[in-house]
Parts: sequence; structure tokens; C-alpha cells
Amino acid sequence: MESAAPHRVVVVGGGFGGVQAVRKLRRAPVEITLIDRRNFHLFQPLVYQVATGALSAGEIASPLRAIFKRDENVRVLLGEVTDFDLTGKRVLLDRLPDGGGPREIPYDSLIVGAGSSYSYFGHDEWRPLAPDVKSLESALEVRRRILTAFEAAESEQDPDRRAAWLTFLVVGAGPTGVELAGQIGEIARDTLRRDFRTIDTRTARILLVEMADRVLPQFPPGLSEKAARSLERIGVTPLLERTVVEIDEESATLRGVSGASERILAQTVAWAAGVVASELAARLAAQAGTGVDRAGRVAVGPDLTLPGHPEVIALGDMVQVHDAEGTPTRLPGLAPVAMQQGRYAARAIRDRLGGRQPPPFHYRDKGNLATIGRAKAVADIKGLHLSGLLAWVTWLLVHLFYLIGFQNRLLVFIRWTLSFVTRGRGARLITATEPP
Amino acid sequence: MESAAPHRVVVVGGGFGGVQAVRKLRRAPVEITLIDRRNFHLFQPLVYQVATGALSAGEIASPLRAIFKRDENVRVLLGEVTDFDLTGKRVLLDRLPDGGGPREIPYDSLIVGAGSSYSYFGHDEWRPLAPDVKSLESALEVRRRILTAFEAAESEQDPDRRAAWLTFLVVGAGPTGVELAGQIGEIARDTLRRDFRTIDTRTARILLVEMADRVLPQFPPGLSEKAARSLERIGVTPLLERTVVEIDEESATLRGVSGASERILAQTVAWAAGVVASELAARLAAQAGTGVDRAGRVAVGPDLTLPGHPEVIALGDMVQVHDAEGTPTRLPGLAPVAMQQGRYAARAIRDRLGGRQPPPFHYRDKGNLATIGRAKAVADIKGLHLSGLLAWVTWLLVHLFYLIGFQNRLLVFIRWTLSFVTRGRGARLITATEPP
Repeated sequence: MESAAPHRVVVVGGGFGGVQAVRKLRRAPVEITLIDRRNFHLFQPLVYQVATGALSAGEIASPLRAIFKRDENVRVLLGEVTDFDLTGKRVLLDRLPDGGGPREIPYDSLIVGAGSSYSYFGHDEWRPLAPDVKSLESALEVRRRILTAFEAAESEQDPDRRAAWLTFLVVGAGPTGVELAGQIGEIARDTLRRDFRTIDTRTARILLVEMADRVLPQFPPGLSEKAARSLERIGVTPLLERTVVEIDEESATLRGVSGASERILAQTVAWAAGVVASELAARLAAQAGTGVDRAGRVAVGPDLTLPGHPEVIALGDMVQVHDAEGTPTRLPGLAPVAMQQGRYAARAIRDRLGGRQPPPFHYRDKGNLATIGRAKAVADIKGLHLSGLLAWVTWLLVHLFYLIGFQNRLLVFIRWTLSFVTRGRGARLITATEPP
Repeated sequence: MESAAPHRVVVVGGGFGGVQAVRKLRRAPVEITLIDRRNFHLFQPLVYQVATGALSAGEIASPLRAIFKRDENVRVLLGEVTDFDLTGKRVLLDRLPDGGGPREIPYDSLIVGAGSSYSYFGHDEWRPLAPDVKSLESALEVRRRILTAFEAAESEQDPDRRAAWLTFLVVGAGPTGVELAGQIGEIARDTLRRDFRTIDTRTARILLVEMADRVLPQFPPGLSEKAARSLERIGVTPLLERTVVEIDEESATLRGVSGASERILAQTVAWAAGVVASELAARLAAQAGTGVDRAGRVAVGPDLTLPGHPEVIALGDMVQVHDAEGTPTRLPGLAPVAMQQGRYAARAIRDRLGGRQPPPFHYRDKGNLATIGRAKAVADIKGLHLSGLLAWVTWLLVHLFYLIGFQNRLLVFIRWTLSFVTRGRGARLITATEPP
């Protein structure tokens, strides 16, 4: 029996950062409340594979309660965090599943990892026209549109409209955009090749729009070059140095560096560009009396705490880490960063509970991976540049390793193996957006 | 080179009957068009397992195009059949994926297997309040409600409302209702047992409402008795000789044979009762100048053809087969019936093309199976009554055998194995009904 009440840790967000933080705290003498809007942890780097029918939604998501079912000191709470009261040390919660009103959760230590979403460059009206592949629901909508487009092309009699159905435009040539475009290319060239009788799916045009002057701008130029060549071989055309200036029901208009515009007739547009931090970053900033940067991220110190609030740690895509001199550091918006920060946050809380001052967070860059298609990938691992089969196998193993849950690993492994052997995609369902 | 144009077979419905018919016709000298509203064949007997998170949607559905990709004489068409013109030998189609208007598909032989849906006893307004487990979308909605109910109970503070969240009512104690109720019982007692901190999920009440005086009325009374005992052991209470007279947002009102009513506070109601044939049965009947029976089914002769239309076969849940004397036969609304009828339809068309008169359809009853839970099932195989583990293993093997596609079989087998070992359910996601 301890005399003092246990230290209460509230973790907001069951993404990569939050889950790692809770995992590393579950043996500590603390009481943990993990809050998320969803009842599952989503393995975001593979969401685009749901959009292409390669995986089923359930295979890349793990129920949060299942992850922590054996940890008696971990409580999972479903609900939407609307704001914080840093002075009163409370998290404000709404939209609880019981339909009840707002509630407050008190904390002694707070960890916030609420992530980010795609920005539509200020054009939120494009969101329904060009769904992203970040949330599961949105990915299922992309899947519905890709598969419906081929069906529509099959029954369409007008050649111009048929061509528009067979034109797929992906906005953003970062890893997600490249992987999505590559998979659409493979669907058209391999998976669906023998499925239709009127159209030749291999005539589909897959266009990959990127603002920078090369695909995968986060990678070394040599690998971008290799990725671009792999993409072209599977029918993807990169359209570089172009931005989207307009999207409507049947087309997207691009503007190049020269200023010239072109309107492309495409019935299917998917979005994977721009990142904007969760609105909770601005809430934290407001409470701490600081601001947010252009990407909506809140500034945290070298130990990931909010200025003036050593009990509040924010991490992942929603923060901009500053070093001891106050200079912003450049950390990529990747799962490994959030995971390392989550583990660091747990250690920092344990340190403070033990009266020790935590060392500053240090990101260990283990490299950067992107897959382009069947047996094609690029990897930049501490300056070692890989491409082709070796990079692809590395990509597969790393993703399987970080998937949570033995069951999901096994199912995804089987899906990938069969998909490699048969060039098929097992989860090719067009389901309605609403129950009929 | 053949001189005559090939015989055109149009198959409406990619369910068990339609798929079997096309399979048995693909080597015949005919041109086949398979029309369905959906792009996939759904393994309906397992849809309820999607509702309980045991399986992912993609694991029990196979894209129709993938099934027939190697059959050059099979064309798959996505669209909604709205009517028939039996005189002009045309099928009328609408809601095509290209957004185009109605279209006509001519045929020489027609096979219609459009299936059935749950009747709400004339109360269609109950449909959104008590979703069924027949379509995938509806099953996903049931899954969302079951899982959300436990979440709501966990955050609910009022004990009465908490009890209502922990009350699950399943309407209909046929195989689907029994299996669904049994799985909810197992979720409450095993799967979620350690997941929550405030509620004890084992206190959940699962009520199974049935009009007849026993569960599984299609089975011999001894097996009904065994099933009822198994259900009670996993926390399911059968409420027999009762009908639903009212459903609202938070309760269902039942009426017993005595005429007494009781209102049960239950936040979650799922529907698995009553069967009504597809509306296409009435369309066929109207064209043939006959009527439909109380279940909306069209009458067909011993060779499954419409009266006066030897070129039109209707089959499965939407038909009432009459024998040579014109007496209605009693065939259960099961997948094996539809499958045998589908194969028969193919043979009958081949016979007629070869100038032979097809023999009447004869149903080979291979037995009746229902599972109740982990290692519990009942089987009635040609008078041999099995229960317990042996019946359960039979159930598993039969369902795996009839699932279409090696990939789905393997994935479902793995899900079931892991679920048996861990008592877990892998696909426990609460996803939004509409993209956020």
C-alpha cells in the first residue's frame, strides 16, 4: 500500500507516439489514461494499401483496449479532446460514446500526440473531391472510387468520358503518393488486366503531381531518379513542378512554374500532399502563450515539454522541436520519430518521478524507405542508398515488424505473399458509403 | 468459326446460385453476362461474423471479376436490374457505374437469382433502429453499435442507462440469430473481459427473441434443446413465443402469446428474422402473369422455369418451386439450395441447347448446421444429430470449403484458429458510417 495517490498520466492520441509512451509506462508506478477518438491504433504507413484493395481495413488496425488489456494501470477512454486547462491540469473531453456532455480528466503529467492531417492548401472544399489516404474511412472511399472508375469505364460508351474514367491523378509525390500511384499502376497493368472485356485497363493514365522538381524530395536525388524510372515502367507519369489550382467533379487544373495552366480530365483524384498539425497543437500553444508555425505545429523544447510546463509533453507530427538555443530542428514527419518520442516521453516522466532531470530528446535516424511496386523500393539508410529487390525486402520486413499484433502481422504477410505470387489484390470491394 | 451467333445467357445476381450457374456454363458454347449491383460475391452465412469483429469484410467477399477473369465468354456488368421484358427478351438495367441512364441487355436464356432480404414484418421504419446482418454495410453498422455500446457503458455514470447499454437484443433465433447472439455472448464473457476498467462486460445481457416455441425451429427439437442450453451457458437468454411490436432508439417492446407486452431497455438491437424475396420476383411474376406468395416469391415449375417461359429460370430465396402436380414444395432458404439450383440451371440450358428436355430439379439435402460458439454447434445430417465439438468441426470445414478463393479460406482459417486460441476477435474496429 502506498500512502500517496498514484501519479496520473493522461496520454492524448493512440498513434505511434501515444502507444509507445503507454507501453513504456505500464510497469511504472503511475495510473495511465489513454484517450483517443477511435477505438483502434492505426498503422498509418499502410493505409494507402487499403485504398488499393491490397489489405483489408481490420488488418492494419489494432483495438487499443486489446493492446493494453493486461495492463491494469492503463485505462482507455474513447472521446474527442476539445481543449486543455494547463493551469488546472485538466483535459477537456467531448463526444463520449454514451452521448453525454463534456467531461474533464485531471492529470499530473500530460502527453499529447494528436498527429496531423493533410492540408488542402487552404482549399478544404477539395477534400470530398480528392479524398486522402490518411484515415481508414477516407482510404475506403478512395478504394471505392478507384474500383468504380474501372467499372464505369467498362460501361461508358463515349471515348472521351471513358478516358477520363481511366485517368487517375495523385497529388503529392512523397512516399505515400508514390506508393499509391505505384499501386494504381500495378492494379491497371496486372491485377485487373484480364477482368474486363471492353476496356484495356493497361491504357489507364496515372498522373503523379508534385510541386518539387523530383519525386520523393525527402530522398537523395539519385534515389528520386531511380523511383521515377520505376514509376514510369509501371505506367505512372510524374508531373513535376506543378501545383493544383482547381479541382472539380471531373477534372483537376494544374499550374506549372512557368505559370501556364492545364486542365486534366480525371474522374479520380486522390490527395497525399501537405501536412497540417492537429488543432490541439494550437490549443496547447494558446494555453502556453506561444504560437504555432506555418504547419500549425506547437513549439516544444529539447525535452519535448511545452515552454513553462515541464509536466506537459507534446510529440509527433504536431510539434516543432527547438534545441537548447531555441533554434527549430528539422525532424521528418515519420512514424519512427513519433515512436522514439513516445518512448522518450515515458522515460522523461519516470526520470522526473525519480527526481532526475531527463536528457534532451535525440532522434536516431534509422533511414528512410519508400516502396514503388512489386519488388521495387528505394531506401536511404544512414547514407547507404539501396534500390530494387533488396530495398523492397527491407521495406517489407520493417513494416511487418512494426505492425502491432501477431494476427495482423500474419494476415498482412499472407496477403502480401499471395499478392506477390498472383499479382492479385484480395480486398477489392466496392462498398457503399452509407448503408443502403 | 461458327456460323450462328452464340447463345446469350444473362445471369442476374452474383450470389450462390448465380455464381454456380456461371461456373457450370463457362465451358459451354454460350456468351454469359453476369449482372450484379455489387462487384463482389458475398459469403452470406458468415456476414454475422463481420458484425462481431471476428472477420474483416474483405475476407468473406470475392470480386466477381476475379472469379471469372479467365473465362473469356463471361462478362461481368455492374448495375441494378430494374425490370424485365420477357416478350422482347431483354433485361432492363439502371444505376450503372458510369452514371449513364437505363440500358437494355438482350438474352436468349435468362437466369435470375436475386435473393432475399430480411422483412421487418411490415415495419420498415425499424430497419435503421435494428440493422440486419445480411449486407456487409449493415453488418459493419451492427459491429459499430455492439462495440460502441460497451464503450458507452464504460463512460456512462447512470446505472440504469449503463444497463441499457449492456443489453443486446437479437430478433430471430434461426441459425443467423443464434450465431450472432452466441458471438455477442462470447465477446462479453471472453474477448472483452479484461478490456474495461469500470464495467464488468460479463454482466451484459444478451436476449434472443423468437416467435416459435424453441430456438432453431428448423432443426429437430432435441438439437434446439441442446442449442438453447449452450446459449444459456454463454450468457444468452432465449425469449421464446414473443414477437417484436415496437422498436425505438433505446428499447424494444415484445408481446408474448398471452398477449402481455413488456418493454426492454436495450441500446443495441440487431435483426435476423423474416425473409422477403427480392422485388425482382414480383417483376417476373407480373410479366409471367402469375403472382407472388406471402414471402414475395415467384412460382416456378419443377424445372425452375417461369410458367410459359422455358427460357427463363429463377432460383434461390426468391422462388417457390412447384412440383409437376402444381403443389408448392418446401425448400429451405439456404446456400446449398441456391448452389444446387444454380448448377441445375446451367445443366438445363446445356440440355436445351443440345435438344434434350432437362429432368426436374431435385434437391439433395446434405443437412443443416448451426454454430453457437466456441467448439459448440448442432448438425442435422440426414437424420444424424450431432452436437458439440464434432458438429462444430463439421461446421468449420463446410464453411471453409465453400468459401470462394484460396486467399479468403486461408485468412478465415487463421482468424478462426487465433480466435479459438486467444478467445480474441481481431477486427474490432469502430469506423464511422461516413467519412469525417
